[in-house]
Amino acid sequence: MSQLTITNSFTRAKEIFEPLHAPHVGMYVCGPTVSGETHLGHARPYITFDVVFRYLKYLGYKVRYVRNITDAGHFEEEGREAEDKVANKAKLEMLEPMELVTKYTNIYHDMMALLNTERPSIEPTATGHIVEQIEMIKDLMAKGFAYEANGSVYFDVLKYAETNDYGKLSGRILDDMIAGSRELENQEEKRNAADFALWKKAAPEHIMQWNSPWGMGFPGWHIECSAMATKYLGTTFDIHGGGMDLQFPHHESEIAQSNISNGKQPVKYWMHNNMITVMGKKMGKSYGNTITLNQLFTGTHPMLEQAYSPMTVRFFVLQTHYRSTLDFTNTGLQAAEKGLQRLMNAGTALKSLEYAGVKSKDSSEEEVVKKLIADLHDQMNDDLNTAMVMATLFELSGKINAWKNGQQPMSVTEETFHLLKKNFYNFTEVILGLKDESAADNSNMDEVMQLVISLRKQAREKKDFATSDIIRDELLKSGIQLKDGKDGTTWNKQ
Amino acid sequence: MSQLTITNSFTRAKEIFEPLHAPHVGMYVCGPTVSGETHLGHARPYITFDVVFRYLKYLGYKVRYVRNITDAGHFEEEGREAEDKVANKAKLEMLEPMELVTKYTNIYHDMMALLNTERPSIEPTATGHIVEQIEMIKDLMAKGFAYEANGSVYFDVLKYAETNDYGKLSGRILDDMIAGSRELENQEEKRNAADFALWKKAAPEHIMQWNSPWGMGFPGWHIECSAMATKYLGTTFDIHGGGMDLQFPHHESEIAQSNISNGKQPVKYWMHNNMITVMGKKMGKSYGNTITLNQLFTGTHPMLEQAYSPMTVRFFVLQTHYRSTLDFTNTGLQAAEKGLQRLMNAGTALKSLEYAGVKSKDSSEEEVVKKLIADLHDQMNDDLNTAMVMATLFELSGKINAWKNGQQPMSVTEETFHLLKKNFYNFTEVILGLKDESAADNSNMDEVMQLVISLRKQAREKKDFATSDIIRDELLKSGIQLKDGKDGTTWNKQ
Repeated sequence: MSQLTITNSFTRAKEIFEPLHAPHVGMYVCGPTVSGETHLGHARPYITFDVVFRYLKYLGYKVRYVRNITDAGHFEEEGREAEDKVANKAKLEMLEPMELVTKYTNIYHDMMALLNTERPSIEPTATGHIVEQIEMIKDLMAKGFAYEANGSVYFDVLKYAETNDYGKLSGRILDDMIAGSRELENQEEKRNAADFALWKKAAPEHIMQWNSPWGMGFPGWHIECSAMATKYLGTTFDIHGGGMDLQFPHHESEIAQSNISNGKQPVKYWMHNNMITVMGKKMGKSYGNTITLNQLFTGTHPMLEQAYSPMTVRFFVLQTHYRSTLDFTNTGLQAAEKGLQRLMNAGTALKSLEYAGVKSKDSSEEEVVKKLIADLHDQMNDDLNTAMVMATLFELSGKINAWKNGQQPMSVTEETFHLLKKNFYNFTEVILGLKDESAADNSNMDEVMQLVISLRKQAREKKDFATSDIIRDELLKSGIQLKDGKDGTTWNKQ
Repeated sequence: MSQLTITNSFTRAKEIFEPLHAPHVGMYVCGPTVSGETHLGHARPYITFDVVFRYLKYLGYKVRYVRNITDAGHFEEEGREAEDKVANKAKLEMLEPMELVTKYTNIYHDMMALLNTERPSIEPTATGHIVEQIEMIKDLMAKGFAYEANGSVYFDVLKYAETNDYGKLSGRILDDMIAGSRELENQEEKRNAADFALWKKAAPEHIMQWNSPWGMGFPGWHIECSAMATKYLGTTFDIHGGGMDLQFPHHESEIAQSNISNGKQPVKYWMHNNMITVMGKKMGKSYGNTITLNQLFTGTHPMLEQAYSPMTVRFFVLQTHYRSTLDFTNTGLQAAEKGLQRLMNAGTALKSLEYAGVKSKDSSEEEVVKKLIADLHDQMNDDLNTAMVMATLFELSGKINAWKNGQQPMSVTEETFHLLKKNFYNFTEVILGLKDESAADNSNMDEVMQLVISLRKQAREKKDFATSDIIRDELLKSGIQLKDGKDGTTWNKQ
């Protein structure tokens, strides 16, 4: 079988994936800034890296998946100083920033659950790691790559660039960055325009601030990820993921910080998903096309012709390779809705199909099915080409439907039939994380509850109240796992 | 109408509830130590204070409900030094402590959702507020009420007791505390046996530790709550809740810390729920009766005769006043299961019942129903007597069933009939938070999804793909709110 390859944004090459400490894999993905409602732009990266997480586990790796929450609300547009969006909005709404953060974090978690993304192993927050960030900044200063100016601390990019390639990941040239940078607030504090903030002095009215060796302030956006990734995954780890728009300045700065502080390149494989557009345009307030996931799932945005279910959106996202751009359109989503249903129907049909193989002179069917199953693996291994995997699943769906409707004889061996059953399920549900929404209930946890409730009803009807043994047996038989069964916790474990 | 009264553990008196800054109410409740699976002992406090939260909102207050997560795992048995349980277990399981914390926090959140407790406004973590804790410790030292010894910092209880009543909340006598304290590790560092740790020096092998002005270490358990409550609710706030077992040393120490640091009593009303026993015994490992909520809901613990649904457990807990002890037994839970069903059936019957009042010479029915509705409010206002409220709801259920079955004429005015409809719903579902589990789906969010899916199907059948307007209309009509609609977010809000 083929080996997993990944396009490494850092080397710009497709490389064989070899973890640093197999069977363990460490993966860090930049999470959302929870200063507003979860929107379309969040769907793609978290679905993409959810599939990476799922596939690595499928391959047998023990994955520690860290996805942060930027709750200090540092938001940095290219070339612009950090600005505390959360604090601004909180003042406006007269809310405690953390109350706002909690509200948006809850919505984000709800949306991620609807999209059937698995929970990360650790979900650290920026405000929860102020000490770690201060420690890393102190270390960078001690090593001579950061300096204090007027209560703020900056990273010395020019000094770093003397011996390191600042711009290697994003493909930018340092001179261009300097020439292109605008004059902004506190720009005069910096030794050079390309320097970026590690710690920002807070004005007294700034709501979110902490004490530090440099006075009251708040951390820069980039240091958050360097500090948390190092804490939970070590000084060098396997995969760092995020949207392509984060390459500069965010990931470029992460590399610089960690490189100096830890004395080595922090990441073996950098993975970036490409951007989305909405009806052909970049998503943005000026285009009126900032669609929240709430609006998408309920069809309550003027640009939407209908509501699109979470699984339709998941299917739609995975139908395009993660490194290609993706345009959200009504036509595309409607096609995805039909495609999802076709795939789910084939999966349901296959589950209830019994082996009914016939001997045939024509052995080509056997070879075709075996080849398609092998293709599924080869296609996932080819830089997680979910688009190709889905095309192959559609080809297999055609076969399944033909068998089911009696249009074609099942000219495969029993072994191949069961191989197909297993793989069709694994690729649609376990790896791509698609599920049938027409089923009354979507979460495994409620599956357990429903089973328990139905068994209790049965027992009541039989006037048999000692149901605990029956229920225990049924649970053990069902093999139902908690939604986040990755941690080994099962409901049926005593 | 009566006014809300609350038994204040601090004054040992039932007092009229008057918030410091009406209509705002600040409430802090001690959350779980996430070093293990959520168990029976967690059900009672979080259901109790969920009802407090719900009732205060029902009364029109704007409540900021802060419930922390103790993820640094400080666990202090009475008179014993802080011990980092999480770190111990993590080493054993060879896990990163935060991975373990995430796992148990997720389980806790899932269990709280099953018990239909609303999410708190802010859910701060101990590890997320190291800076705030260090700042408060520095302040206590500057004020002369804390001292460093060998890299640890202790609160000077004797000095505090010179001018303050240490023991007022818990009713303990300081001299007894000193005489009764055992000789434990590092006891010799303390000036007095009654002193408690604010910061503990960490051994190098200790997994969870942070840098501080006193070297590497970790915060004491009590300082966490003082620092976070002050940060999010201010120096004096309305309600502090928790289990009665937390009165000493935890809450007594919180009072001492905040009192010195903020210069005033931190809390206006202290509320404590009484303890639970399991089949007549204190819950504990030696009794083999530590039942997790997972086990309770699935009936997979040897002591359980059957599985008990989350709503059965919620009903069972609320059937006893929060200040009385509560014994978990199979008999009690089975009775609660039947009681819950009876109440839910009456609620369903009432919802579909049309007004069919008859003129009757006997006006006593009208008076009886009106009196019972008034009782609901009086009973909740009487220190949240949910036990009495449920008894009244049962009386009303009898009337509803008699009307429904035609055994009795509906001898009430239309006004009273609608008043009953509104109040029966409000008290069972909005305030007590009970819901009908036999309904296919339990969460409002999935309710929206189901509606959307069913509407999409209808539209497909009619070959009408422009469903967004229909769906929007249906959503607006349905008035469905997000589960945590407290923040004003609604799915049907454009």
